[in-house]
Amino acid sequence: MAYVLQIDFKMLGPFGDEMAEAFSDLAKSINEEEGFMWKIWTESPETNEAGGIYIFETKETAEKYLDMHSKRLAGFGITDINVKIFAINEQLTKITHGPLN
Amino acid sequence: MAYVLQIDFKMLGPFGDEMAEAFSDLAKSINEEEGFMWKIWTESPETNEAGGIYIFETKETAEKYLDMHSKRLAGFGITDINVKIFAINEQLTKITHGPLN
Repeated sequence: MAYVLQIDFKMLGPFGDEMAEAFSDLAKSINEEEGFMWKIWTESPETNEAGGIYIFETKETAEKYLDMHSKRLAGFGITDINVKIFAINEQLTKITHGPLN
Repeated sequence: MAYVLQIDFKMLGPFGDEMAEAFSDLAKSINEEEGFMWKIWTESPETNEAGGIYIFETKETAEKYLDMHSKRLAGFGITDINVKIFAINEQLTKITHGPLN
């Protein structure tokens, strides 16, 4: 059963095209993580926040990624992160066209 | 440009199949909301939390839905919600296969 990992944190930038350029290699590497299905990259230049919505195949792979990613963020000086891991109600998600494949 | 609305809150249930049964009509109605693209329904029976990850076509339609939905949640007795609206970095999201269509 798929799980959601939602993360956000304060970040002073870069955003937009500069963010895409800075993190494109990182993005490619995320595709190789165990259990990874997809990620939507979130950003809010107005409030200096960024983050991501990830889907992993299992709770264990979501937790393993979070552990690694938390350390990576700390390496960027980002330590105060909001994070939740959730199960997915698949029946309701199917009704509202949530993409899980 | 699409926007993410992420919401979560404390909830004592129902979860799983009972949640799906309780909220299936609500789920169908969400499909009719202005600018709505999709929603993943999140739940965590272990921590008594639930919520959703939504994609809306614009920031304005996300904000409009949030305003309505906050009042609806308050009607269920849920007033302490964590909520963020984010823009999406489409270039990075494309690399990591984030589904925006």
